[in-house]
Amino acid sequence: MDIRQAEEADSPAILEIILPVIREGATYALDANMSEVDALNYWMADDKETFVAEERGIVLGTYYMRANQAGGGRHVCNCGYMTRASSIGRGVARSMCQHSLAYARERGYRAMQFNFVVSTNERAVRLWQSLGFEIVGRLPAAFRHPTHGYVDALVMYQPL
Amino acid sequence: MDIRQAEEADSPAILEIILPVIREGATYALDANMSEVDALNYWMADDKETFVAEERGIVLGTYYMRANQAGGGRHVCNCGYMTRASSIGRGVARSMCQHSLAYARERGYRAMQFNFVVSTNERAVRLWQSLGFEIVGRLPAAFRHPTHGYVDALVMYQPL
Repeated sequence: MDIRQAEEADSPAILEIILPVIREGATYALDANMSEVDALNYWMADDKETFVAEERGIVLGTYYMRANQAGGGRHVCNCGYMTRASSIGRGVARSMCQHSLAYARERGYRAMQFNFVVSTNERAVRLWQSLGFEIVGRLPAAFRHPTHGYVDALVMYQPL
Repeated sequence: MDIRQAEEADSPAILEIILPVIREGATYALDANMSEVDALNYWMADDKETFVAEERGIVLGTYYMRANQAGGGRHVCNCGYMTRASSIGRGVARSMCQHSLAYARERGYRAMQFNFVVSTNERAVRLWQSLGFEIVGRLPAAFRHPTHGYVDALVMYQPL
């Protein structure tokens, strides 16, 4: 698997990955009905660096990195990861997260923070924990899950 | 003290309040060198409702409210408060926070979250606690304070 900076030409592949996740509305706090343009503008915003994970020319996953806060908080980065539905379970998210941790260190970030991990996304919570993240906060009933109703969201954090 | 929605004409007074706080860089994770226009655009952004607290026509403080997340997280609001330096200690922040809690309930929000309360801002931490907020998360060394160096930031939360 090769992980590299996303280019303009990756937009259709990125959209194929992120749109189903956004439409499902079960793991990201984003408007499930947002337009394709808004979705791409969100994922590839000017304040983000966006990456793709590909294998034999097929994009299997994508992630972004940005400073989580400005000013006195700009040494902490934030990332979001999404995997192509048909590639889940093959270690794509794990590889992207490992890549992002190495890249964040290279860029001089001192910590990585996930602001809003939906607690019912247990697969993700376990994966982030196995990669060194700790749950440093719990937001009670902060996410309205499309099938589970109001569930907690977690703040996860890792010094680098 | 009267608390009301901010109008365009309040911009100079708002700027007089927020600019020193931003320039000091000790309590908000914002670029301390941001321009006056950027500061106003931040505080009065389209996704925010901005209020002013005034007494005898003098603006003593200002706050904003916005949805903290989109989609499944949009039932939780976020606020930021700033008090005119010369009016600190007169209960302006307390009055604004009480106003915001009532307004948030009125608007149908189910909780209020502060994402990044600098732990050395003890006056604020105590005030928010006295108004019903709990510390639900601690971000280790997430803020670089201009004089104290790296200090923790707190996530505070209150169901409404």
